[in-house]
Amino acid sequence: MHKKLFIPGPVEVRQDVLEKMSTPMIGHRSKEASELQKSISDKLRKVFYTQKEIMLSTSSGSGLMEGAIRCCTAKRAAVFSIGAFGNRWYEMAKANNVKADLFEIEWGKAVEATKVAEVLQTGKYDSLFITHNETSTGVMNPIEEIAEVVKKYPEIVWCVDTVSSMGGTKIEVDKLGIDVCITSTQKALGLPAGMAICSFSKKAVERAKTVKNRGFYLDLLKLYDCIQKKNYQYPSTPSLSHMFALDYQLDNMLEEGLDNRFKRHKEMAEYVRNWAKENFQLFADERYLSNTVTAIKNTKGISIGDLNKKLGERGFQLSNGYGNLKEKTFRIAHMADCTLEDLKELIHNIEDIVNTINS
Amino acid sequence: MHKKLFIPGPVEVRQDVLEKMSTPMIGHRSKEASELQKSISDKLRKVFYTQKEIMLSTSSGSGLMEGAIRCCTAKRAAVFSIGAFGNRWYEMAKANNVKADLFEIEWGKAVEATKVAEVLQTGKYDSLFITHNETSTGVMNPIEEIAEVVKKYPEIVWCVDTVSSMGGTKIEVDKLGIDVCITSTQKALGLPAGMAICSFSKKAVERAKTVKNRGFYLDLLKLYDCIQKKNYQYPSTPSLSHMFALDYQLDNMLEEGLDNRFKRHKEMAEYVRNWAKENFQLFADERYLSNTVTAIKNTKGISIGDLNKKLGERGFQLSNGYGNLKEKTFRIAHMADCTLEDLKELIHNIEDIVNTINS
Repeated sequence: MHKKLFIPGPVEVRQDVLEKMSTPMIGHRSKEASELQKSISDKLRKVFYTQKEIMLSTSSGSGLMEGAIRCCTAKRAAVFSIGAFGNRWYEMAKANNVKADLFEIEWGKAVEATKVAEVLQTGKYDSLFITHNETSTGVMNPIEEIAEVVKKYPEIVWCVDTVSSMGGTKIEVDKLGIDVCITSTQKALGLPAGMAICSFSKKAVERAKTVKNRGFYLDLLKLYDCIQKKNYQYPSTPSLSHMFALDYQLDNMLEEGLDNRFKRHKEMAEYVRNWAKENFQLFADERYLSNTVTAIKNTKGISIGDLNKKLGERGFQLSNGYGNLKEKTFRIAHMADCTLEDLKELIHNIEDIVNTINS
Repeated sequence: MHKKLFIPGPVEVRQDVLEKMSTPMIGHRSKEASELQKSISDKLRKVFYTQKEIMLSTSSGSGLMEGAIRCCTAKRAAVFSIGAFGNRWYEMAKANNVKADLFEIEWGKAVEATKVAEVLQTGKYDSLFITHNETSTGVMNPIEEIAEVVKKYPEIVWCVDTVSSMGGTKIEVDKLGIDVCITSTQKALGLPAGMAICSFSKKAVERAKTVKNRGFYLDLLKLYDCIQKKNYQYPSTPSLSHMFALDYQLDNMLEEGLDNRFKRHKEMAEYVRNWAKENFQLFADERYLSNTVTAIKNTKGISIGDLNKKLGERGFQLSNGYGNLKEKTFRIAHMADCTLEDLKELIHNIEDIVNTINS
């Protein structure tokens, strides 16, 4: 039996979108491939609220995260972490001999803009890496406030991981001044896993030109140059299946209307939070709750593993806590094409199972 | 109108295989995902003729090629090139500060085993990189003869690019002693583009442990450790769609029978070569012709661009020559699930168009 996914990626994908994954192959050096890339880029610029170049990478979001920290750091990177994926960015720096410092915030808390200001005013850094939405904790960082700080430091190339938020909440890339904004297909965009996406600023281009040892496959400058000079094509063969599905799904998103989409996500988030507060507790700082995933403290001490197994028998799947938070928390994702009705159905089943366990 | 692809990747994919790309998502940390990975690995070991570990990478073949040269070279890499993709391997070494020397063979010729012996006996190298089948020239290197040489140098970690040959011709990885054998989905395996595959030997594992600065996303040791220790799962979200289709297509391949499959490829290659020799000339050294793609000298001076355009109007696509060989050669791929009948249909149309141009 298929389990409807309420995990923070991969998400449940609409049947019509899944079907586009079966589109027959075309040559990746063909005119059709260029047109497909251009069409996707134009639509993604709307979702990203940007005029910048858009690049696709046949990799997970981690691929572009690694490319970004490697290509955008000439001096030293400041990496802020509020959970597993921020830590990963720092690990990527170390694995590539990129000079970097890690600023870890307690799990469940957000990066406050004042903390970013403190770090940047040391003058030690030329690049900044921040997770927008941390799926391990359900925290969404106050990106607008942070942007106000970053704007004061023109030497900073700013890279933001919006892997689990882009398409589910408004992120105005150009207004915020984000240089490299990274996302991937299997989260709030509502597509199968397997492709990553980023916007890439002129400042990032100029920085990358000063960096040697950028690698090949994840070299963002190489991707950019190919897009610019080779008629919107890539250095190596991309996942055309994902491109067909992405092009189609972007039409769905724009048809729903971005504002409607963000509103739907907010409503779903509020519904799950309210239920969680009534029955358990929220894990994250209530000032910085994610609109796409909610982490819930397991205050009732139920076995999350058992709950998920029983949910599986009924055709649903949620996420246990991440890493050390396993069994101490559980997570419900509410993103992509998920609806309030879907969440009500899930929660009805959770309550039913928990009541059965307790009775 | 869909164009039937006779280009050396992406290839034409069977409709039933395409449909598997639409399989609904599952959690990438689920038991089902582990079972899917295990099932794929077991079947791939048959195709690779190996007992070694098999790893998938959500990237093009280039991703794993970069990972291999970076992870398997502690001292210095010897890179043999017989065309564009061999040169790319050397470029990847340079882009990652991996010490390497490039040994370029004239395009259209193969790497002779004696040349490999000359280079290895210098004792300067601890890794060796060879393209098995070069799509830019239609040459297939004499891998068995080269293997006899490599066996004399136990310090050498041997990596072979079989991107455009694996599944189309017999490559006995264990018998040949290949440490890292790389391929990708969109060639002779007959799947959509977007995933790369490699086998990984214990010797390669031990070598990678001695190499620092292996990166993150393309770190083959990280992939290996995850597969070994994390219940057949990956460090980041893989393209599950490709995994579903790959698992299914491997059944098709094993049902056809590998020997039957290789025989079919040989027959198709011979048919195209004979036609090419009668009407044009072969580009590659006739002793080392590829079983999956034939490069043909444009001795009639026809416009390959026009030919391909007219073929496109009839629902077919072949490849122009690669890089500097554009218009001087053209290429017909005969791999994956392509049949002799498909090739006869293509060639009938080529002849018809060429006759019309000439008349």
